[in-house]
Amino acid sequence: MSFEDKIRKVVPYVPGEQPKQKNIIKLNTNECPYPPAQGVQEKLKNFRYEDLRLYPDPDASDITKALANYYKVDEDNIFVGVGSDDVISMAFMTFFNSKSPILFPNITYSFYEVWADLHKVPYKKIPLTDDFRIKKEDYFVENGGIIFPNPNAPTGIYEDLDMIEEIVAKNSDVVVIIDEAYIDFGGTSALPLIEKYDNLLVVQTFSKSRAMAGMRIGFAFGSKKLIGYLKDVKFSFNSYTMNRPSIECAKASIEDDVYFKDTCKKIIKTRQNTEDSLKNLGFTFPKSEANFIFAKHDKIKAKVLLDELKKRGIFVRYFDKDRIDNYLRITIGTDDEMKALIKAFEEIIKEN
Amino acid sequence: MSFEDKIRKVVPYVPGEQPKQKNIIKLNTNECPYPPAQGVQEKLKNFRYEDLRLYPDPDASDITKALANYYKVDEDNIFVGVGSDDVISMAFMTFFNSKSPILFPNITYSFYEVWADLHKVPYKKIPLTDDFRIKKEDYFVENGGIIFPNPNAPTGIYEDLDMIEEIVAKNSDVVVIIDEAYIDFGGTSALPLIEKYDNLLVVQTFSKSRAMAGMRIGFAFGSKKLIGYLKDVKFSFNSYTMNRPSIECAKASIEDDVYFKDTCKKIIKTRQNTEDSLKNLGFTFPKSEANFIFAKHDKIKAKVLLDELKKRGIFVRYFDKDRIDNYLRITIGTDDEMKALIKAFEEIIKEN
Repeated sequence: MSFEDKIRKVVPYVPGEQPKQKNIIKLNTNECPYPPAQGVQEKLKNFRYEDLRLYPDPDASDITKALANYYKVDEDNIFVGVGSDDVISMAFMTFFNSKSPILFPNITYSFYEVWADLHKVPYKKIPLTDDFRIKKEDYFVENGGIIFPNPNAPTGIYEDLDMIEEIVAKNSDVVVIIDEAYIDFGGTSALPLIEKYDNLLVVQTFSKSRAMAGMRIGFAFGSKKLIGYLKDVKFSFNSYTMNRPSIECAKASIEDDVYFKDTCKKIIKTRQNTEDSLKNLGFTFPKSEANFIFAKHDKIKAKVLLDELKKRGIFVRYFDKDRIDNYLRITIGTDDEMKALIKAFEEIIKEN
Repeated sequence: MSFEDKIRKVVPYVPGEQPKQKNIIKLNTNECPYPPAQGVQEKLKNFRYEDLRLYPDPDASDITKALANYYKVDEDNIFVGVGSDDVISMAFMTFFNSKSPILFPNITYSFYEVWADLHKVPYKKIPLTDDFRIKKEDYFVENGGIIFPNPNAPTGIYEDLDMIEEIVAKNSDVVVIIDEAYIDFGGTSALPLIEKYDNLLVVQTFSKSRAMAGMRIGFAFGSKKLIGYLKDVKFSFNSYTMNRPSIECAKASIEDDVYFKDTCKKIIKTRQNTEDSLKNLGFTFPKSEANFIFAKHDKIKAKVLLDELKKRGIFVRYFDKDRIDNYLRITIGTDDEMKALIKAFEEIIKEN
């Protein structure tokens, strides 16, 4: 017997390429093209580095207080983690312990499958409809829990709150997780529903609309009961996950609401312009309420477009998977970046 | 059936008190009394906050490169995480999947039991000898893995490398984890043994000797095989755990070796002086090779001392547990802090 027999073997998630060269246009991992709020810079500049010798506040209460104040909920309704990946993985561990399979769409954030494998949670992937929509009736069956993003990724499609509520209401015997990483770009959050349904967990992040992917901050809203269980698991895992600079910078970001709303507005405007240009070039795509567009061209294969863009220093995301292998997921960058993208597409289409 | 039936219920670890009032002497969580290296301050002050919009390097390769260079190992021998708690918890998940119980001392870091419960790993606690030593023969039995700190916590006792090597060698069919959180205060690291034994994982941290508990950085050394498995689990959990400021600051800390060695030397010197003073006051304690002393008084109960110290604004750690409920774990602070502690003890002893 070798020690290798006792090792947990997992197929690791492959994250979007993080090219290290400079002077590229990076539209492949849904990052925000604008910097974080100015207050974040001030916090880092004036950070009392001597305080780093001390453990951080395990409750990260400066973040939960700021979020509670901003979203008008109690601090006890909020859980904070190292990015929404950390929050959702802890939620899988905490809430998905049934023998019945959890349910999520077959086209969605690919980490769900990885977490289910990692935590040995049985799961069933529910096919999206032909036009990439979630069919609520598919989720009215015996299951061990439900998770999907709204807007969904990589499609960008937002499902309205009535449908979300119906799914949550018909599944009161399990926890339903709505992953709202992209909610600030057009959709309406399910947050108010946590008052009515104690089995609902709503997860959000600082990585997209708050331009802080490099800081790793995610959070969840839920009933005090759900948040309590989640905290118990977190505290038994690692009491001190949010480091001191993260806590201070998150607070500064939340406090600058004008900048936050302005950033979201700019991205939505650029998305609309990009949609218009893409349409003119022969692309089709579902209506996006996220900071990306999921598009295919009526003549040229996605893989060809991907490679041609890369030659021009433009990176977008491609998934070599059934049903979506002719689509590109294009992050909304600055207006200039999108103009460069459209120009590149024009060239490629002319040449092919 | 309610969703609560499917919830993982754990007894959360209770971390050392983090008092929020100012002007106290905090000797209860083994933090470093000195600030981090000066370069850490520079990094924060000059941090390009615009870069926070981008995901961090998932490999944190600026840290692994700096560590590899400093400790003369390959980058592939190093794993980095959000504090050693994150590293060890991932190691439990990755390596301890046997039906045989893992083994650790009955008096040790109390998180081991919590992680075993969390990850559903069977375990057996092996009693320390009467003088709080690890008896190697106790670990020469069928088991699913082994973990203990060296120096041990909360005793501060260091076991020599011959013993560590024998335990690792006789357990080649399981993974043996040596938790070296306190190794820089007098012991010799088991690091060189990873070349000879591919079942050995050596874990260290930036929280103690590098004065960066507030930044959350831990790391492990092991064979390329072990580190590879650990990375697979980490990447399936959360690809981006180390945020951008952490990565830059860790690098700056490692690069200032003079400051690092000087800090350790100062703490060791203060520990020696404190030991002398405590002895004169009627305390006994095992020889410590850590940044704390585990002491009991020959007349006054630990609980009384604890409460009296607290009244004077001095916090030390007390464990209300069998065999150690008459001991205090006293972190080594600055010379001035230790003088204040000794003065307080003199007063309390006079009054009691």
